[in-house]
Amino acid sequence: MNPKQAQQPDKTVTGNYFEDFKLGQEIVHATPRTVTVGDVSLFTALYGSRFAVQSSDAFAHAIGYPRSPIDDLLVFHVVIGKTVPDISRNAIANLGYAEFCFLAPVYPGDTLASVSEVIGVKENSNKKNGTVYVRSTGRNQRGHKVLSYARWVMVNKRDLDAPAPDPVVPKLAASVYPATLGAALPPLDMSGYNYALAGSPKRWGDYAVGDKIDHVDGQTIEEAEHQLATRLFQNTARVHFNQHVEGKGRFGRRLVYGGHLISIARALSFNGLANAFHILGLNGARHVAPSFAGDTIYAWSEVLDKAELPARFEMGALRLRTFAVKDQSCADFPGVKADGSHEDGVVLDMDYWVALPR
Amino acid sequence: MNPKQAQQPDKTVTGNYFEDFKLGQEIVHATPRTVTVGDVSLFTALYGSRFAVQSSDAFAHAIGYPRSPIDDLLVFHVVIGKTVPDISRNAIANLGYAEFCFLAPVYPGDTLASVSEVIGVKENSNKKNGTVYVRSTGRNQRGHKVLSYARWVMVNKRDLDAPAPDPVVPKLAASVYPATLGAALPPLDMSGYNYALAGSPKRWGDYAVGDKIDHVDGQTIEEAEHQLATRLFQNTARVHFNQHVEGKGRFGRRLVYGGHLISIARALSFNGLANAFHILGLNGARHVAPSFAGDTIYAWSEVLDKAELPARFEMGALRLRTFAVKDQSCADFPGVKADGSHEDGVVLDMDYWVALPR
Amino acid sequence: MNPKQAQQPDKTVTGNYFEDFKLGQEIVHATPRTVTVGDVSLFTALYGSRFAVQSSDAFAHAIGYPRSPIDDLLVFHVVIGKTVPDISRNAIANLGYAEFCFLAPVYPGDTLASVSEVIGVKENSNKKNGTVYVRSTGRNQRGHKVLSYARWVMVNKRDLDAPAPDPVVPKLAASVYPATLGAALPPLDMSGYNYALAGSPKRWGDYAVGDKIDHVDGQTIEEAEHQLATRLFQNTARVHFNQHVEGKGRFGRRLVYGGHLISIARALSFNGLANAFHILGLNGARHVAPSFAGDTIYAWSEVLDKAELPARFEMGALRLRTFAVKDQSCADFPGVKADGSHEDGVVLDMDYWVALPR
Repeated sequence: MNPKQAQQPDKTVTGNYFEDFKLGQEIVHATPRTVTVGDVSLFTALYGSRFAVQSSDAFAHAIGYPRSPIDDLLVFHVVIGKTVPDISRNAIANLGYAEFCFLAPVYPGDTLASVSEVIGVKENSNKKNGTVYVRSTGRNQRGHKVLSYARWVMVNKRDLDAPAPDPVVPKLAASVYPATLGAALPPLDMSGYNYALAGSPKRWGDYAVGDKIDHVDGQTIEEAEHQLATRLFQNTARVHFNQHVEGKGRFGRRLVYGGHLISIARALSFNGLANAFHILGLNGARHVAPSFAGDTIYAWSEVLDKAELPARFEMGALRLRTFAVKDQSCADFPGVKADGSHEDGVVLDMDYWVALPR
Repeated sequence: MNPKQAQQPDKTVTGNYFEDFKLGQEIVHATPRTVTVGDVSLFTALYGSRFAVQSSDAFAHAIGYPRSPIDDLLVFHVVIGKTVPDISRNAIANLGYAEFCFLAPVYPGDTLASVSEVIGVKENSNKKNGTVYVRSTGRNQRGHKVLSYARWVMVNKRDLDAPAPDPVVPKLAASVYPATLGAALPPLDMSGYNYALAGSPKRWGDYAVGDKIDHVDGQTIEEAEHQLATRLFQNTARVHFNQHVEGKGRFGRRLVYGGHLISIARALSFNGLANAFHILGLNGARHVAPSFAGDTIYAWSEVLDKAELPARFEMGALRLRTFAVKDQSCADFPGVKADGSHEDGVVLDMDYWVALPR
Repeated sequence: MNPKQAQQPDKTVTGNYFEDFKLGQEIVHATPRTVTVGDVSLFTALYGSRFAVQSSDAFAHAIGYPRSPIDDLLVFHVVIGKTVPDISRNAIANLGYAEFCFLAPVYPGDTLASVSEVIGVKENSNKKNGTVYVRSTGRNQRGHKVLSYARWVMVNKRDLDAPAPDPVVPKLAASVYPATLGAALPPLDMSGYNYALAGSPKRWGDYAVGDKIDHVDGQTIEEAEHQLATRLFQNTARVHFNQHVEGKGRFGRRLVYGGHLISIARALSFNGLANAFHILGLNGARHVAPSFAGDTIYAWSEVLDKAELPARFEMGALRLRTFAVKDQSCADFPGVKADGSHEDGVVLDMDYWVALPR
């Protein structure tokens, strides 16, 4: 929590506005969270994930894990959820991610906490809002980093007359490099990997750059589901929960947390990418259009690149671009138009590296 | 279970009617329940609770708990849920609570069971129903009391000609006294309490009698959510689950379990009372008006009193009156009118003691 | 996974069609699953089950279990869920079950995996589809069978010109025999069974063949609930999840997973059969009519038969026929008409053996 955080006289918290963020500031986020098998079950019920490593202690153990690790995206949702009250409360747009890497495996019983450092600020010319750049880090109870990423959001100003800070826009890598990834994979023995139990015989070598994979199935979102998910992650962003306010707002509906879409797409991607059991890192994720309960989400992926993983001869990395689309099949791979804008119906465009057996 | 409990010839249970309750009767309730981390995760998903002590084993351990304790209200819901088939099945109104104290901490793996003693009965002059007073106790698997409270409900008679019992109305304390509270707090070392991780720097000394705190956020209830919650607590009261019957009833809707409102309000109260991590006891809770799916719940609290806790120099107690209100912001603190009746929209009026660092 | 399984060039899986199934084929299903207390909590929240053995470690331990066992039907849903991508994906009807027996207790931490053997195939005269008979087995991480059953489904052909296989219809027992059942019960000491905590004093001897038991309460299904349940079981059948497609289909609605109805009926049956804590085996389950969110489910049971359990003098078996009915009370026991067809509103007709204290 930021000691300078704006507070009403009645001690409630209204979150940080653009001018509250200072370059170099460190924000210790509240609400450390012990992640448990209870969270794993709820995550399965919310998304229907079938990746065998995260589903079965026996399967995970057979390849070298002490037990089934916590799903990478569950780690992400928990870590980012803690940053929301301090970073996002007055945000009007989630602009992007960079240098997003999973750094250590997480297991049931581990406690995660988040800290952010302000690495850039730039007021907009309209003087009503500005972009805040942070680097957020999730650590476990032993102080080890489990996840680190940079993120930037557009945040409103409280006082339109507050002077603009000196603009600083951090240099961020356009993508994460597989050679630096893999820290969240323990030493593994892929000779124990059972392809029948995993659900697919397809290994790294069976994919080629340019492959397009339709994940086929569609999942319709219900209000209760996205609310349960977002609360599970202790993410408090009001637009997801308050129909009384949202009903009179721009969309008339509660907005589905963008991370919910990410996890639906990831679960759908099992069909075609069943052995891509680990997300190494994320190059970017754009929430292209809002999503609401009643939307049916479909997904497809393109293989953008392949890379070896240093010192892991038994595994390889694929760079994927996964699109989540609402209310239309992905048989024709709806993505970006010639001018670079997204086709109608695209709600998520995600670029990330996964690891799978070689 | 009460051996005299009315049963159909086909062995199902129809619950106790007013004339089935006898002064001094002890009712052993069914369905002992082992509370687990699975329940903790669901509780978090249902309410979004962020109190650090109940969220993180590491945080709890740092102040002297062996691990993160089970949320006080989760203990309450589980204990009272067991009493419902025997006490509430033919109840038409939940009238009140008194002498409600948490008596021992509960941890994942503990098994809770409930017993009630009938401590008063008074038929109404209309001879159609009467008030039943019980004292209910929840114990763990070692036989230690974890929660005790008195409660009274209005219950229908089965046989309108059944003679009225001698009326007995128990003398119950108007409020619980902090000096007698705190048994559910283990020995604690508050020097390990991390205010940044907890989410607020506000301690007992920062609150004054008369403070009014708007908890700001609103939470819209969904049918699936309140049903999942109520079943999680193994509470079988039919009005929460059966739209086929309720659709033709007075409200046309399934009634949301009052305890669901209590927990929503408690979770919302984190904003402004983040360090009030333990509920010592309850002076009363009135379900002022019914609530239904679609309602957006807001909350605010007033500090009614402050007290020291005997032998715990590092902590203090606040007496809070928390109102849950539907479909309106609490910026203007909607509560009671001059004549003592509640303002429109108030659904819950709760008076309780909490403990926080001093 | 079946190596011959049809795959799109883009590596997704479209499931097996009728002509893909060969007599004697063994299919190793994907997605082994460690069942945990998280799953137990969700199961309780979904169905409100109150059977004391599955609710309380202390209660279970008192009669000889090491701890509370996983609910029999939860074991069933997890095991059958794994077979769906390979067996049911192109099925148009679920025709029946036989020789369905629980074979070993399952505890939190156990990992379940499923394997099926094709034991019969018979193309229909219309040459568009045919019946596939499989025997499916769920095993734990030690390789011990926990559940075995035969099942037959009607599956579409991909290629209408594919030649019909030689028809084989397996001889399956019309019912399971109590004398062979009970393997999923550990050695038990029923002297430790607490009838008050269990919720009913009714033992095996209190039931007679021909008894009809109305389970009284009704449960209204919500979209989020059946979706959460079906995903929890990692059951991917599309008709349960995709309103975009189902909205244009025959019913206009997402179909509720038949197993969800089975578990609602089982939970409702606690009222009247509270001590029937173990399902020994199933003789059959017919999903008589489709069910959708908004349906209110009621249930009633008839005692078809009684039997002793070999070597277990403290327990007996009841053969039950449980009907789940939508949108009507079961006070008049709606079941089958004189001509053997089901009365309107019946959605499930289940014939199974349960064990209870003698």
